[in-house]
Amino acid sequence: LTGPIELSHHHNVPLEERIPWLKQDVRKLRHLVGVSGGADSVALLHLLSRAGFSDLVVCHLDHRLRGRASTEDARFVARLAKGLGLHCEVGRIDAKLRMEETGESMETAARHVRHGFFAECAAKHNCPRILLAHHADDQAETVLWNLLRGSHGMKGMREEQAIMVGNLELRLIRPLLGMRHQDLVDWLKSHKLSWREDASNSEPVAVRNRLRNEVFPLLSEVSGRDAVAAFARAADDAQLHEDADNEALDRANLLDPQGRLHLTALRKLPDTLQKSAIRRYLTDCGVPSIDRRLIESAMALLDLANPAVVNLPGGRRLRRKENRLWIAN
Amino acid sequence: LTGPIELSHHHNVPLEERIPWLKQDVRKLRHLVGVSGGADSVALLHLLSRAGFSDLVVCHLDHRLRGRASTEDARFVARLAKGLGLHCEVGRIDAKLRMEETGESMETAARHVRHGFFAECAAKHNCPRILLAHHADDQAETVLWNLLRGSHGMKGMREEQAIMVGNLELRLIRPLLGMRHQDLVDWLKSHKLSWREDASNSEPVAVRNRLRNEVFPLLSEVSGRDAVAAFARAADDAQLHEDADNEALDRANLLDPQGRLHLTALRKLPDTLQKSAIRRYLTDCGVPSIDRRLIESAMALLDLANPAVVNLPGGRRLRRKENRLWIAN
Repeated sequence: LTGPIELSHHHNVPLEERIPWLKQDVRKLRHLVGVSGGADSVALLHLLSRAGFSDLVVCHLDHRLRGRASTEDARFVARLAKGLGLHCEVGRIDAKLRMEETGESMETAARHVRHGFFAECAAKHNCPRILLAHHADDQAETVLWNLLRGSHGMKGMREEQAIMVGNLELRLIRPLLGMRHQDLVDWLKSHKLSWREDASNSEPVAVRNRLRNEVFPLLSEVSGRDAVAAFARAADDAQLHEDADNEALDRANLLDPQGRLHLTALRKLPDTLQKSAIRRYLTDCGVPSIDRRLIESAMALLDLANPAVVNLPGGRRLRRKENRLWIAN
Repeated sequence: LTGPIELSHHHNVPLEERIPWLKQDVRKLRHLVGVSGGADSVALLHLLSRAGFSDLVVCHLDHRLRGRASTEDARFVARLAKGLGLHCEVGRIDAKLRMEETGESMETAARHVRHGFFAECAAKHNCPRILLAHHADDQAETVLWNLLRGSHGMKGMREEQAIMVGNLELRLIRPLLGMRHQDLVDWLKSHKLSWREDASNSEPVAVRNRLRNEVFPLLSEVSGRDAVAAFARAADDAQLHEDADNEALDRANLLDPQGRLHLTALRKLPDTLQKSAIRRYLTDCGVPSIDRRLIESAMALLDLANPAVVNLPGGRRLRRKENRLWIAN
């Protein structure tokens, strides 16, 4: 689990000592590291290298969104890897092109492109572990953004997360999730290490930049508190709740041997767990764009007075039949 | 439970039809109504009166914070009540004075003064039910403020809430919690009803005003969503989770006959429920200023390797002894 979210970036304890993940005994294992060339990922790479991680593969994805600066970013990362004696993979994939071809949102297209690149690197280097430089500020922004979109409650990023890309399971690891961005910058400066200003992982940045540069400073000023820390902590709480929900759902034995949701078992659960159960079932079935409204419609299936079918995004349907819920085409 | 939080204030359905609480069969029961003279509470009073609530007692508290305007507010409310043929109670209590005398924060002092006044009215009119005009915008601000303070997670106000004032149990009821402030203003205008601009319930307004006038508009603009609705909904979710937690805690039989927390039973619960159990125990014992940090310290008592006593705000102590936790002086 994530270390404690830090209230401010004033500490006497050196940064290296404040990252619990770095102290695990996994230094000799191979790890892929996502490095954009920006301060956060450059700090992560140096921290890992200095902590004795010796089998690192630097992975840099050029989304081709910053023109010539993108090429410079890639060169910088390649040089950095070489200087540390590490292998470097550079991918060049046009996320905009994918967006136009697939009709996905920029966010979704960029994520698919990124995950595809990681999967390639993972297969080539026979290593499912991918280290990412997301920190507490990213976490706070993610949580606030998810809250505003109403799609995932207060959910943030996990320190460790398994994702499937095709048939490959990748393990995303975020050792810096409890650290503040400013701490990483200060650490780089105090060690006279350089990075590429403005290099980013090329996620869609318009909203995120405004959250970072306008919303969080205003929230901190108005409240007289560290708003980033408050939101990052709220994400921790939400995660504990989600873990507890998942435990409860596992104990409730909701699925029949065909993997369909038993209505009798489902109805015995409190309302909030019923919703979690339906959300989890739809997620496990690969239903896209699961939001609050969809969960509410699906919940209506529990009442026999309502129609027995709910249309799902992506064209499939959720049906109530024989005292069970399942997805049909 | 609260009706659905409304996304925007553009509707074809009249306001009266969108307030589930008004449709309950309690019109003939006596209710106290808190009326500041501002748009929200004036709208509540008219809505109740028009819905056929006939035994209403209008309760106006003059905090004496707005000088002469306060007196005008009180006169306006008295006239309004008279026009509707309702009895009106006016209280005049100086919240600032109480703050200075007790050393409480303005927020706490104002709440005590308010609750004391309600308790007086409740006793005099033999009626524990008090209707308040809090709406979705208030709810969103409360939730964000609680989140920033880190004291209550995403907790907002409940549509119905029991509070003890001395030995008297009062029932606070908030029928407008799903409605938007702008809808109430529009409704008043369309019915040519007047109110006192700037009359407020005199809670500390500096932070709240900035949340309302700066933070939420910025959040909505940046995200392209209705941020008030998003936060009010998040409060609903948090409430469902809290209800589910409370059910689970009731089932877990944590208290021994002396009302002490059984450690064996407590340890069987998931981490998040252990915290909820400790929070509830401390709250029930009247411990003030319960925050995240206090819960974390109390959680440390579960580990026999740690000291067996934790100091509580207010001077009492939480002890671990004989496989139980309890509060000693």
